[in-house]
Amino acid sequence: MNSDKTNQIWIYDTTLRDGAQREGLSLSLEDKLRIARKLDKMGIPFIEGGWPGANPKDVQFFWQLKEEPLTQAEVVAFCSTRRPNISAAEDPMLQAILAAGTRSVTIFGKSWDLHVTEGLKTSLEENIEMIRDTIEYLRSQGRRVFYDAEHWFDGYKQNPDYAMQTLESAIAAGAEWVILCDTNGGTLPHEISQIVKNVVTAISQFPISNSQFPTPQIGIHTHNDSDAAVANAIAAVMEGARMVQGTINGYGERCGNANLCSVIPNLQLKLGYSCIQDEQLAQLTEASRLISEIVNLAPDEYAPFVGRSAFAHKGGIHVSAVERNPFTYEHIQPQQVGNLRRIVVSDQAGLSNILAKARSFGIDLDKGDPACRDILRRLKELENEGFQFEAAEASFDLLMREALGQREQMFELKGFQVHCDIVQNANALATVKVAVNGKDILEAAEGNGPVSALDEALRKALVNFYPEIAAFYLTDYKVRILDSGAGTAAKTRVLVESSNGHQRWATVGVSSNILEASYQAVVEGIEYGLLLGARRNDRRNPSPTKI
Amino acid sequence: MNSDKTNQIWIYDTTLRDGAQREGLSLSLEDKLRIARKLDKMGIPFIEGGWPGANPKDVQFFWQLKEEPLTQAEVVAFCSTRRPNISAAEDPMLQAILAAGTRSVTIFGKSWDLHVTEGLKTSLEENIEMIRDTIEYLRSQGRRVFYDAEHWFDGYKQNPDYAMQTLESAIAAGAEWVILCDTNGGTLPHEISQIVKNVVTAISQFPISNSQFPTPQIGIHTHNDSDAAVANAIAAVMEGARMVQGTINGYGERCGNANLCSVIPNLQLKLGYSCIQDEQLAQLTEASRLISEIVNLAPDEYAPFVGRSAFAHKGGIHVSAVERNPFTYEHIQPQQVGNLRRIVVSDQAGLSNILAKARSFGIDLDKGDPACRDILRRLKELENEGFQFEAAEASFDLLMREALGQREQMFELKGFQVHCDIVQNANALATVKVAVNGKDILEAAEGNGPVSALDEALRKALVNFYPEIAAFYLTDYKVRILDSGAGTAAKTRVLVESSNGHQRWATVGVSSNILEASYQAVVEGIEYGLLLGARRNDRRNPSPTKI
Repeated sequence: MNSDKTNQIWIYDTTLRDGAQREGLSLSLEDKLRIARKLDKMGIPFIEGGWPGANPKDVQFFWQLKEEPLTQAEVVAFCSTRRPNISAAEDPMLQAILAAGTRSVTIFGKSWDLHVTEGLKTSLEENIEMIRDTIEYLRSQGRRVFYDAEHWFDGYKQNPDYAMQTLESAIAAGAEWVILCDTNGGTLPHEISQIVKNVVTAISQFPISNSQFPTPQIGIHTHNDSDAAVANAIAAVMEGARMVQGTINGYGERCGNANLCSVIPNLQLKLGYSCIQDEQLAQLTEASRLISEIVNLAPDEYAPFVGRSAFAHKGGIHVSAVERNPFTYEHIQPQQVGNLRRIVVSDQAGLSNILAKARSFGIDLDKGDPACRDILRRLKELENEGFQFEAAEASFDLLMREALGQREQMFELKGFQVHCDIVQNANALATVKVAVNGKDILEAAEGNGPVSALDEALRKALVNFYPEIAAFYLTDYKVRILDSGAGTAAKTRVLVESSNGHQRWATVGVSSNILEASYQAVVEGIEYGLLLGARRNDRRNPSPTKI
Repeated sequence: MNSDKTNQIWIYDTTLRDGAQREGLSLSLEDKLRIARKLDKMGIPFIEGGWPGANPKDVQFFWQLKEEPLTQAEVVAFCSTRRPNISAAEDPMLQAILAAGTRSVTIFGKSWDLHVTEGLKTSLEENIEMIRDTIEYLRSQGRRVFYDAEHWFDGYKQNPDYAMQTLESAIAAGAEWVILCDTNGGTLPHEISQIVKNVVTAISQFPISNSQFPTPQIGIHTHNDSDAAVANAIAAVMEGARMVQGTINGYGERCGNANLCSVIPNLQLKLGYSCIQDEQLAQLTEASRLISEIVNLAPDEYAPFVGRSAFAHKGGIHVSAVERNPFTYEHIQPQQVGNLRRIVVSDQAGLSNILAKARSFGIDLDKGDPACRDILRRLKELENEGFQFEAAEASFDLLMREALGQREQMFELKGFQVHCDIVQNANALATVKVAVNGKDILEAAEGNGPVSALDEALRKALVNFYPEIAAFYLTDYKVRILDSGAGTAAKTRVLVESSNGHQRWATVGVSSNILEASYQAVVEGIEYGLLLGARRNDRRNPSPTKI
């Protein structure tokens, strides 16, 4: 298979099957289809869709894709070898995998003698027969077969002769790929290197009885229990593996599978292998975030390559150096994986941070402008009070506009009360008085806590003046007690994330009264949302993160 | 340094310095002290406390530890080499590090020629002189010096001769350890192996002019930008590095540092190196979670070794197999790192935990006691609602006493109202009605936020009946939003830590109303304090953590 292109690595995505084993993750049929289509666009050649014999939802998935096929990727069905002591043709699970109608199928079988005798409760000979019979049967039905050697590394360490016999059986029966799996995730890179090297040597010497098949290629499938899944996949590739199985964002059982968002850029940008096209690689960050939205899990902001913090820089000297020569502080160029360099604003901020930040908000600011020093001074004052703008860029944008005299007062809060009677009724009642265009409005609302009551009352008061507020909602709300040793009298920092359905932005408030801090953040969230609406037609201004 | 114990690896924790660079993480002085004391108990030999010349908070940290020293760990101060073109004795940053009064100091310097000329804007010769002069000066002041070779791997790849000259300068000046840093995190394990091997060979051939010092040992400091920080640290150790610098939970700038919660068990359980005592390793999971609570970041449930899902098993066959022979499905025994096997479908796993927990609270509980099952069921219900007892053992103690019919009602809350008028007056007013010994008491109090007003009113109402309450105060108050995607309507978990001046205890409350959650935790905090007073003369009952 493409043996001329020795630097080609075939990526095999198993987000939809092994990834879905992650605790807390569940995928609807629609989710699975959306993810498959995104992977297809990304140029992933193989997408494992599920186990049709074990899961009715997976059967539907394959049917749907037959009606509306993917453009390039090959979708692969997954199944175990046949059960002991029946023939392959009699096994209903194998009938189900044939019914899925894919050109290729992945069959997993046992490599570890202990799992054969203790798990399957059959003889070592019967296991080898199960592998042979299953693969031969599927080949006779016109399928290409990928063989996943489950528990390969543990099995090989315990009984290398038997493990190699299972592989020989799979290859003789016509498996085109044999994938070595570190199922328990306990193997370390140096062991992976040594064992893959041994396998490559051994396979080249196999007396393949069935000469109609070419020598199969080797793949690798790793789990992250030792925090080394990515390094393990790379180690295997460097010893000759040409397929990597993994998942987007490293989703998977226990600690997850090899994260393709790390495997692909490492192989392609650092080691000169070819996995997907460069333009597709430049969509990696977007794919990672989209898929985390589809599965409804918060993206890992600290993820290598694709995380929001992956190319974030703090500190003044550091920032001017990275802008002069990114190579000094960045291991790859963020745009190669579709990510962005971010200059983090924090109490270590220098002038160059402020300038870079202003540019990213579409604000023209000159180094000589006295407003720069004002912003810096104000920033340091506020951070000293406990404000933190790293995660509240919308509040920082408003702060800059205020210093530049560009912040328009859209409404003024004139009164705000909250009342809670916890024993009688867990709901809270909020009353607000707001002035808009010189007119006072009084509104009240209930909520299941004081902050949601306040948010509700405020939006009720303003929606007649700013109808777009109807589409705003809070997507996240975080509280941190500063100087927490001071107990309940300590200062509270509240971070609020808001959305209008298209964009998200974050604001911050600080006070020793948690309600006041929440109020500040909620009010700035509404103000910034209105500002975004006003800016929408202004192309010079970049928008905040798209959902 | 202990060169006879060739399998000893010296762990150097930099959670308090490099870890604190993580975006969104900020540490109070009290947080830093608590983390340092926990690391000390874990047997971590070196704890980097901060950069006294750059941060006033870090100065205080070192002073506090001089007054109340750690029991075993050595706390280390961090600083750069002196500035160009002045003498080391003149540099105020070096005066600050001396004033910190630690026995050992870590000095970082440039290894990469590009960073010298572009970053420091000085000559290559002056940089070598800065390294030499700084280390010689600190040695002359009686300090042991660890030298962090910043950007080592990138520098070595670009200009190995110059990089080696910087190291030679550090060693000749008396550095006892030289730590090779992958500052940008872009290096892969095979490169780490090769370069560390070259350094080990080169150092053994250095013509060390200053023969008063023994050959220094080598350390490794890695970052996770390539998703390989742990594998990189291991690769370096296998080539002869004997110190690993990293952080708890992998906190750190951008994508984080090498995660010590993965490094330590890999080295100790799989590769036969010795890092900490086995009993200390068995506290790793608890340490990881405690520190994530202190820094107020949700623990990573999927983290290798210490995550809640790390040893979670699904499915019937799998479960019986793993119970028959854990080795078939687990790469290490979870209890070796203080974690638990979790059988997702059965509650069997929790029972022994409950028994162990009860013992630790001085409660006699037999496995056959039906109360065990009650506690387990109640615990699971509450955890499902979002309660978490890992950091709130006092609440868990009360829960067990309730199930055993041993929880005495000391007071009953009959009414509780909070009123806040934020625009008029930032203070909050709380009113409570409490029944004690059949008598109703009504009290009101003001506070600078609703929770402190409530705490104040409650203590005013109760102090006549329980005079010891006068000595109680809240030492910590933490809020976490559960299911944060739900915005302000999400559930809130409040952790409260209370003290009577001698002891500390922590309680928890959960509600969609933040005031109600706070109220639950504050009330249980008062109740538990009273219980402690009642128990004080009973020697069989162990007390909670001493301050």
